[in-house]
Amino acid sequence: MIIHIPENSDFSIHNIPFGIFSTKNRSKRAGVAIGEHILDLAEVHKLNVFDFDSSVLNQEFLNAFIALGKSVTSKVRSDIQSWLKDDTSILANKPELFVKQSDAQMHMPVSVGDYTDFYSSIEHATNVGKMFRDPENALLPNWKHIPVGYHGRASSIVVSGEPIHRPKGQTIPIDSKQPVFGPSQRVDFELEMGFITGKNTNLGDSVTTADAEDYIFGLVLFNDWSARDIQKWEYVPLGPFLAKNFASHISPWIVTIEALEPFKVAGPKQNPEVLPYLKYEGNKNYDISLEVGITPEGNEEQTVCHSNFKYMYWNMAQQLAHHTVNGCNIKVGDLYGSGTISGKDEKSYGSMLELAWMGTKPLKMKDGTERKFILDGDTVTMRGYAEKDGKRVGFGEVAAKILPAK
Amino acid sequence: MIIHIPENSDFSIHNIPFGIFSTKNRSKRAGVAIGEHILDLAEVHKLNVFDFDSSVLNQEFLNAFIALGKSVTSKVRSDIQSWLKDDTSILANKPELFVKQSDAQMHMPVSVGDYTDFYSSIEHATNVGKMFRDPENALLPNWKHIPVGYHGRASSIVVSGEPIHRPKGQTIPIDSKQPVFGPSQRVDFELEMGFITGKNTNLGDSVTTADAEDYIFGLVLFNDWSARDIQKWEYVPLGPFLAKNFASHISPWIVTIEALEPFKVAGPKQNPEVLPYLKYEGNKNYDISLEVGITPEGNEEQTVCHSNFKYMYWNMAQQLAHHTVNGCNIKVGDLYGSGTISGKDEKSYGSMLELAWMGTKPLKMKDGTERKFILDGDTVTMRGYAEKDGKRVGFGEVAAKILPAK
Repeated sequence: MIIHIPENSDFSIHNIPFGIFSTKNRSKRAGVAIGEHILDLAEVHKLNVFDFDSSVLNQEFLNAFIALGKSVTSKVRSDIQSWLKDDTSILANKPELFVKQSDAQMHMPVSVGDYTDFYSSIEHATNVGKMFRDPENALLPNWKHIPVGYHGRASSIVVSGEPIHRPKGQTIPIDSKQPVFGPSQRVDFELEMGFITGKNTNLGDSVTTADAEDYIFGLVLFNDWSARDIQKWEYVPLGPFLAKNFASHISPWIVTIEALEPFKVAGPKQNPEVLPYLKYEGNKNYDISLEVGITPEGNEEQTVCHSNFKYMYWNMAQQLAHHTVNGCNIKVGDLYGSGTISGKDEKSYGSMLELAWMGTKPLKMKDGTERKFILDGDTVTMRGYAEKDGKRVGFGEVAAKILPAK
Repeated sequence: MIIHIPENSDFSIHNIPFGIFSTKNRSKRAGVAIGEHILDLAEVHKLNVFDFDSSVLNQEFLNAFIALGKSVTSKVRSDIQSWLKDDTSILANKPELFVKQSDAQMHMPVSVGDYTDFYSSIEHATNVGKMFRDPENALLPNWKHIPVGYHGRASSIVVSGEPIHRPKGQTIPIDSKQPVFGPSQRVDFELEMGFITGKNTNLGDSVTTADAEDYIFGLVLFNDWSARDIQKWEYVPLGPFLAKNFASHISPWIVTIEALEPFKVAGPKQNPEVLPYLKYEGNKNYDISLEVGITPEGNEEQTVCHSNFKYMYWNMAQQLAHHTVNGCNIKVGDLYGSGTISGKDEKSYGSMLELAWMGTKPLKMKDGTERKFILDGDTVTMRGYAEKDGKRVGFGEVAAKILPAK
């Protein structure tokens, strides 16, 4: 191996995820993560090994690179795998190609055109339905027919590490008809994964479930912050707005869908049968272990949730087929959130709303404090990885601290 | 006057709206509409009259030009007004600077980053509430406290003239629990205006109602197509999705907020009193006459609606203050729809849903047919203009034809 890769690294030779990084002396450019290093693709290009214009590797975002299509991007990835494995390859004895991750700053990997959030975990939707509606009829009538989704705000999606301020907004006190204004008292994380499309469609065209994965470039971890009290007051009848658009965080490395291929598993059986355009063949779920930790200011991190992407009732192919069945066009760099990923077990719930069950079961923290929701100074960290037959493909982390309201 | 401007032109000397056009021999560039012509700004730049880089006028979109700020864009507009009025100005005897609008193709004026749609007409919200909920309590409890809004799809916003296909999707037959799939039977227009922001904010920052208009570059006509049957089935609990994102059309010329200044009027009195961050001073509504016509295939246009932008309960300053009060950041080129603009009179309703009252009062067309919703082959055209003291500032039109489902 050209470079040392620590055992158990998320960024093994089987991964080769793409991102945008900068260093003290040089501005944003494309790279791939390998072990504790970044292979600087702009530098690799200088070796004249790629037959595309180097400008796509020297931009603020990966969109132009991704837009070259999988015939190019998949080859770049597999070439890099070969070169890294071969101690006599063109990467040999060129330490200047490798930057330590600890010496680099990561940035948003893509310019997100449109961002859509789904609501595709049956456990999450059921939990929310139980809490806010009818425990006996927790799922709404459309839920098992439609991968329910809605549009979110692209501008406020930021990369792991950027702290955000607690949002302010209107909330309605219990038993009052008069809303009040102030900092949200119910800031929550949502454990999600996001996929990024790598191909445009034209307005009027649709993507089938069979073709959908050709349109997916890769996946990231996604924390879709939510202000539950703002949401409760604003969301009828047109859906969540300010409760969600104050910020969402993504992990910096896009793990390609090719790298995740070995981790495909069957999804939950869908009953009732879905409409023909939502039917699919083969395994379309992915076995990706997920966890969430909370780090109170000045204290150590405490894991509060273990979940898995394989729990999703609706898979990404169905989400994309549904999204485009009406002719809605998609673009390179668009982001699609899975919705909160909860499992059956109460330790696998992907939000504080569910973990502390609307505040009725506060989480005990090691420092003696309790958490119903996220407090100022807390850092929320999500991690995810797939592992099978000794191969590990991970996402690193998405972490962010909540600062007090401005 | 350097160029003839027909009486009653939307594009009078008082207007000077900005757009992106192309001609047979030359690709996209910036221009302003004047009478029946376009003043080619890329050509004007060659006269060395602007002190900014010409590249911003030779792009596919106006974003980079708008991002220069109002100190630049407002001066360009007022300079052009002076030059056009002065027969000896630098524009004199240069017919090559003017392109006939009939010889030009108009394009999307901006690359829309994020698109938000509000729901700010009290008459529209009341009509919808009466039809779908409780006639006695038509407005939901939050409506008079919040300029209710939601995120829409930016990728499917297209410019006037581009035909679109009838969307397909899931709908639920009356008295059935099993959805069906097929072309929407209830395609509707929504008469809206949209504003476009001209200045970025940082994540975490807010815009006050007092400052909001500094962030607004200008306005367009906006047809927010809707599929009422798809919407009915999908929209609970997260809001409209495929019912709206198959297409929205905008008029090609952005009328600056400065050009609309003379047409400011008081808005409806807001009762109950709004929270402090939504209070405003001075007139923030705009007296802009609006109309909608339907042209059945092969027949003549028939006006079906006369409305006015001044009816809005929530004004643009309030919308923007609300949108950003939680720290959500905005960008140059973002678009904000007003929501359907209905008046009190039943001929002023801004959608077929209201005009034909859920299909119970079909509109009689001159060709003998009826309309409950929009049929294949129909062209829907919206027009808008402000007029006062002999000054007319208009938007031209946004028109689009519905083609059969693909």
